[in-house]
Amino acid sequence: KAKYNNDLYKTVNLPGVAVGLAWTYVGGDILFIESSLSDGKGELHLTGNLGNVMKESATTALTYLKSNAEKYKIDPSLFQKKNLHIHVPEGATPKDGPSAGITMMTSIASALLGRKVKPYLAMTGEITLRGQVLPVGGIKEKILAAKRAGLKEIIVCAQNSKDVSEVEAGFIKGLKFHYVNKMEEVLQIALGL
Amino acid sequence: KAKYNNDLYKTVNLPGVAVGLAWTYVGGDILFIESSLSDGKGELHLTGNLGNVMKESATTALTYLKSNAEKYKIDPSLFQKKNLHIHVPEGATPKDGPSAGITMMTSIASALLGRKVKPYLAMTGEITLRGQVLPVGGIKEKILAAKRAGLKEIIVCAQNSKDVSEVEAGFIKGLKFHYVNKMEEVLQIALGL
Amino acid sequence: KAKYNNDLYKTVNLPGVAVGLAWTYVGGDILFIESSLSDGKGELHLTGNLGNVMKESATTALTYLKSNAEKYKIDPSLFQKKNLHIHVPEGATPKDGPSAGITMMTSIASALLGRKVKPYLAMTGEITLRGQVLPVGGIKEKILAAKRAGLKEIIVCAQNSKDVSEVEAGFIKGLKFHYVNKMEEVLQIALGL
Amino acid sequence: KAKYNNDLYKTVNLPGVAVGLAWTYVGGDILFIESSLSDGKGELHLTGNLGNVMKESATTALTYLKSNAEKYKIDPSLFQKKNLHIHVPEGATPKDGPSAGITMMTSIASALLGRKVKPYLAMTGEITLRGQVLPVGGIKEKILAAKRAGLKEIIVCAQNSKDVSEVEAGFIKGLKFHYVNKMEEVLQIALGL
Amino acid sequence: KAKYNNDLYKTVNLPGVAVGLAWTYVGGDILFIESSLSDGKGELHLTGNLGNVMKESATTALTYLKSNAEKYKIDPSLFQKKNLHIHVPEGATPKDGPSAGITMMTSIASALLGRKVKPYLAMTGEITLRGQVLPVGGIKEKILAAKRAGLKEIIVCAQNSKDVSEVEAGFIKGLKFHYVNKMEEVLQIALGL
Amino acid sequence: KAKYNNDLYKTVNLPGVAVGLAWTYVGGDILFIESSLSDGKGELHLTGNLGNVMKESATTALTYLKSNAEKYKIDPSLFQKKNLHIHVPEGATPKDGPSAGITMMTSIASALLGRKVKPYLAMTGEITLRGQVLPVGGIKEKILAAKRAGLKEIIVCAQNSKDVSEVEAGFIKGLKFHYVNKMEEVLQIALGL
Ligand SMILES: [Ca+2]
Ligand SMILES: [Ca+2]
Ligand SMILES: [Ca+2]
Ligand SMILES: [Ca+2]
Ligand SMILES: [Ca+2]
Ligand SMILES: [Ca+2]
Ligand SMILES: [Ca+2]
Ligand SMILES: [Ca+2]
Ligand SMILES: [Ca+2]
Ligand SMILES: [Ca+2]
Ligand SMILES: [Ca+2]
Ligand SMILES: [Ca+2]
Repeated sequence: KAKYNNDLYKTVNLPGVAVGLAWTYVGGDILFIESSLSDGKGELHLTGNLGNVMKESATTALTYLKSNAEKYKIDPSLFQKKNLHIHVPEGATPKDGPSAGITMMTSIASALLGRKVKPYLAMTGEITLRGQVLPVGGIKEKILAAKRAGLKEIIVCAQNSKDVSEVEAGFIKGLKFHYVNKMEEVLQIALGL
Repeated sequence: KAKYNNDLYKTVNLPGVAVGLAWTYVGGDILFIESSLSDGKGELHLTGNLGNVMKESATTALTYLKSNAEKYKIDPSLFQKKNLHIHVPEGATPKDGPSAGITMMTSIASALLGRKVKPYLAMTGEITLRGQVLPVGGIKEKILAAKRAGLKEIIVCAQNSKDVSEVEAGFIKGLKFHYVNKMEEVLQIALGL
Repeated sequence: KAKYNNDLYKTVNLPGVAVGLAWTYVGGDILFIESSLSDGKGELHLTGNLGNVMKESATTALTYLKSNAEKYKIDPSLFQKKNLHIHVPEGATPKDGPSAGITMMTSIASALLGRKVKPYLAMTGEITLRGQVLPVGGIKEKILAAKRAGLKEIIVCAQNSKDVSEVEAGFIKGLKFHYVNKMEEVLQIALGL
Repeated sequence: KAKYNNDLYKTVNLPGVAVGLAWTYVGGDILFIESSLSDGKGELHLTGNLGNVMKESATTALTYLKSNAEKYKIDPSLFQKKNLHIHVPEGATPKDGPSAGITMMTSIASALLGRKVKPYLAMTGEITLRGQVLPVGGIKEKILAAKRAGLKEIIVCAQNSKDVSEVEAGFIKGLKFHYVNKMEEVLQIALGL
Repeated sequence: KAKYNNDLYKTVNLPGVAVGLAWTYVGGDILFIESSLSDGKGELHLTGNLGNVMKESATTALTYLKSNAEKYKIDPSLFQKKNLHIHVPEGATPKDGPSAGITMMTSIASALLGRKVKPYLAMTGEITLRGQVLPVGGIKEKILAAKRAGLKEIIVCAQNSKDVSEVEAGFIKGLKFHYVNKMEEVLQIALGL
Repeated sequence: KAKYNNDLYKTVNLPGVAVGLAWTYVGGDILFIESSLSDGKGELHLTGNLGNVMKESATTALTYLKSNAEKYKIDPSLFQKKNLHIHVPEGATPKDGPSAGITMMTSIASALLGRKVKPYLAMTGEITLRGQVLPVGGIKEKILAAKRAGLKEIIVCAQNSKDVSEVEAGFIKGLKFHYVNKMEEVLQIALGL
C-alpha cells in the first residue's frame, strides 16, 4: 500500500517539496508538502483539505522565514512580488494539527531558495515563531510508515528521542535519526544551509 | 439517459471545455468542465455547486499553470489582465472531491491557449501542485458512463490501471486508455502540447 | 391569484426585466427578474432571498455576456464603469435552483443593451458558461402558471419538448413554444438580437 | 403603550426619518427608519438587528434611487462621497421581511434630498428594483397600530385596498389612505417630489 | 464585591472612559466603556466580548457624531486619520443589547474631544441615529449597582422616570438623576458641551 | 512533565517572547507568547489556536501601545511598515480568555523595542484599553506551575494578592511577587522601561 518508491521519488525531487509524517486513525502515513511560487503580490494560498491549526503552521513558518530572511540568504523581495501556494496532496483526506510545522517550513524555504530537499528524508515536529522545534505525538506509527516507504533519514525534536528509543530496534534498522531543537538545524540538514 | 451525443458534442467543442468522469451514489456520470476568460484583474470565479475540495483542485491547477506558463507557452500576462471563470454544469447537483483535478487543469489550459480539447476524450485523476497525477476511486462506474456517452478515449493515472483491468473486457470494447503519471502527459494527449 | 395582467405588464415593460417560471411546493408561479445598472466599478449585487445555486446562475450569465460582448454588440466598458444589481421580487419567498439561468441572462442582456424583452414571453432553463441551454424540471406546473398569468410565448430547452407534449392540449391552447439549445437562440427570440 | 405622540413627533421631524408599520407576533407596531449621511466613500451601513431580507430591501432601494437620481433631482455625487447609514431603533427586537421597503426608500430619499417626510404619515409595502410597490401582509394590525400612535395618513399598495376595506370602519375613522402602484407615487406623497 | 472605589476611579478619569450600567442574570453591575484613538485610516475596532446589537450601538453612535461633528465642535479630520478602538473590560463576560448606547456615544465623544467625562456619573439608555434616547430595562437593578459602587449621578431616558420612582427612596438617597430625551442633553451633562 | 528548564530558557531569551500562566482543566501551565515583526503594512496575525477573547486581548494590547508609543519610546513608524505576528505555541491546545492580556502586551512591547523580557519572569492578568491590570482566576494553580517550571518572579494584579496569600507558604518559597494596577508597572518590571 506504500505509494512512495524510487520511481515516485524522482517526480518528488523538485525544489518546494518536502516529506512529512502523519498519524491517522489507520496508522502512520507519509505526507508530501508542496510549495510553489508564482508572480503575485505576496498572497498565501493553502490547499489540500487543511484544518485551521495546520493552516496556522504555514503562516507561522512563513513569518519565521520573513523575519530570518537575511540569515538564510532568502531574497526578501520574493515575499512582495511572488504568491506562495502550499498544497498537501490527497485532497479527499482532511488533515490537521501542528506536527507538519517543520515540514511546511522546509518546503517553503526550499521553494524560496530554489534548492531541493535532501532525498529520502522525512520529518515531523511543531514549530514556534522563534524557530524552536517542539515534540509531537504518534512517533512510533510515523517511523514505521517512513520505513515502509523506503525513506532513510528522519528529523524529530530532541524531546521525542525517548519515543524513538521505545520502538523495537529491528523495525527501524537502517533509518538514521536527527534530533533537533531549532529550526536552523532542520534547514541545515534538509537544505544544507 | 446519456446526454452526450454527437449533436451535443458539437456544442461542446469550444476551447475551455473538457470532459471529466464523476462517481455519484447513482453510478458513474460524465461531467463537463467549462473555463472562460474575460477582461479583469486575475480573479478566479468558481460555480456549479462545488464543494471545497473541488474548489481547491481548481486553485491548485491554476497555480501549476502559472508556475509552468513558459513550459506550456501560455502568455503570462493573461493571469493579470483576465478573470478566469470555471463552471461545472447541472447546478442542482452538489459536486466535490479531488478527482476532477486533471479535467480542471485541462479545461483551464485549453481556455488560456485558445486550443480545443481532443474530441471524444474523457479523463479522471487528482493533481498535485508539482504536476503529478494521483489515482482516484470509482474507475469501473466512470468507465461505463464514458462508454454509454459515446466517448472513445480515457485518461487515468497509471496507478489506476489495475482498476481498469478488472472491468469485463466486453463492456469497454473500443475504448482507448491512456495511463499517465504527470500532468504534462495529460496536456500532451488532450491539447497536443 | 395570478398577479400578472395587462396593467401590471405595463409597469414591467422596461429594459432589464424578464419573466421566468418557478416551480414551488404549491405549484408553478411566474417570477420577475429585474436587472439595473448604476454608476460604479463593476460590482454585482444580488437580492431577493436567493440561494447559492441561483446566485451562481447570475455570475455564470454575467461571465457569458462579458466573454461574448462583441457578438451581442454589448459595450464592454459597461462591465467596468457600471454596477449591476439583479433583484427577484417577493423577498419573503426563498428562491433557489439553476432553472432561472436563461431568464437571468436575458434580464442582464436587456439591461446592458437598453432593449426591452418581448412582451408576454416567459422562459425557463439552466445555462452553461459556453451558452448551452439545459433541461429543467416542473415543466407542466410552470406552463400552467404561465397560462394563468396571461403569457403567450414560452422558451424551454429542446430536451424539455417531451415534457411539454405530455401536458393536455386543452390546457395550453394558444401558448406558443420555442425549443432551444443555445443561449443565442434565447436572446434572438427575447431581444431580437 | 404607544410611544408616538406629538412631543416625540417633533424629534422625529428631521430629514432622513420615515415611519413604517410592522406586524409582530404581539400585533402591529410603528417603526422608525432613520437614514443619515456622513463623509465617506459610498459605503452602506445597516443597523438595528435587521434580517437579511430587510437588508436586501435597503440595497434594492438604494440602487433604485441611484438609477433614478436624475428623475428625482438627487445629486449623483452623493453616492460617491457620502456614506449612508440606515438604522431602525429598538435594537433589542429582531426585524425582518420585505414590507419596510417603501419606508426605507422614502427614508433614504429624504436624507439624500435634505427634505423632511410629510408629518403624521406612515407606510408599508415591498419595493422592486424597477420601482413597483407590492402588497404585504398584516394590514389590519398595522392600521390599528398607526391609529393608536396618532398617525393620520397611510400609504399601502393598491392591491392591499381589499385588506383595508375589511377593517371595521369605526376603528379607522379619520385615517386617510393612499393606494399606490409605483414608488414615484410614494415619493410624491411623502416628499412632494 | 463592588470594584469601583475612589482609587480605581482615579485610573478611570481619562478622556475616552465612560461608566455604564448593565443588567445581568446576577443583578446590576457597572460597566466601563473605553475609547481610544490611534493613527490610522478611520477604522473602528470593537473588543470586549460584545454581541452584534451592542456592536451596532457603537457604529450608530459613531455615525451620529460624524454627522453632528460641527455641532459638537469635533474636528472632522479625526474620522479620516485616526482609528477608533472601543473596549469594554472583563472579556470573560459576554455583553449584548442596546442599553449601552448613550454610554458608548459619550465615551467616543470624550475621546474625540480629549475631554474627561464628569466624575461619579453613570448612564444607561439606547440611542437612535438622529440622537434620541430610548428607555431601557433593568433600571432598579442598575441603580442599586451604581449606588453600591459609590457613583453619584445617573442619566436615564425621561420615559424611565417611572421606573426610578418605583425604587424605595432609602435605597437611592443621595443619587442625583438626570432625565433626558436627546443625546445632546447627555453630552451636555457628561462633557459640558 | 515541566518543559521549562535552563536549556529551554536559553532559546526563549529573544526579544518578543514573554512567559504567561494558564489555567486549564488539568491544572496550571506556563504559556509562551511570541511576537515577531516582519516587513509589511501594519497587519496583525494571530496564531496558536486562539479563541476570540484571547484575540481581542491582542488587539487591545496593540492599540494601547500605539496610543502610548511616545510614552514608551516606541518608534511609531513600526506600526505602519511592519506586520506583527503573535503566536502561542502548542497549536494542538485551544486557548482562550482574557488572562494572557498583560503577557501579550509585554511580548509585543518587547518585539517593538527589540528588548528582551527579564529572565525567569512570568505574569498573568487582564488588560484594559487605558492600561489597567484586572484580576484573573486560577492564581493558585498558575503559581504552582510557575514554581515547577523554575520561574522566579510573578506579576499579578494587586486585587489578586489575597489569592496569593491563600497558597501555602512552603509551596511558593523563593518566588517573588509583583502586585500591579497599571500596565506601566508591568512594562517597568519586565522591560525596565
Ligand atoms: Ca497516503
Ligand atoms: Ca510532519
Ligand atoms: Ca449528468
Ligand atoms: Ca474527473
Ligand atoms: Ca408570485
Ligand atoms: Ca426560470
Ligand atoms: Ca415599538
Ligand atoms: Ca413598513
Ligand atoms: Ca463587573
Ligand atoms: Ca449602559
Ligand atoms: Ca504546556
Ligand atoms: Ca497569562
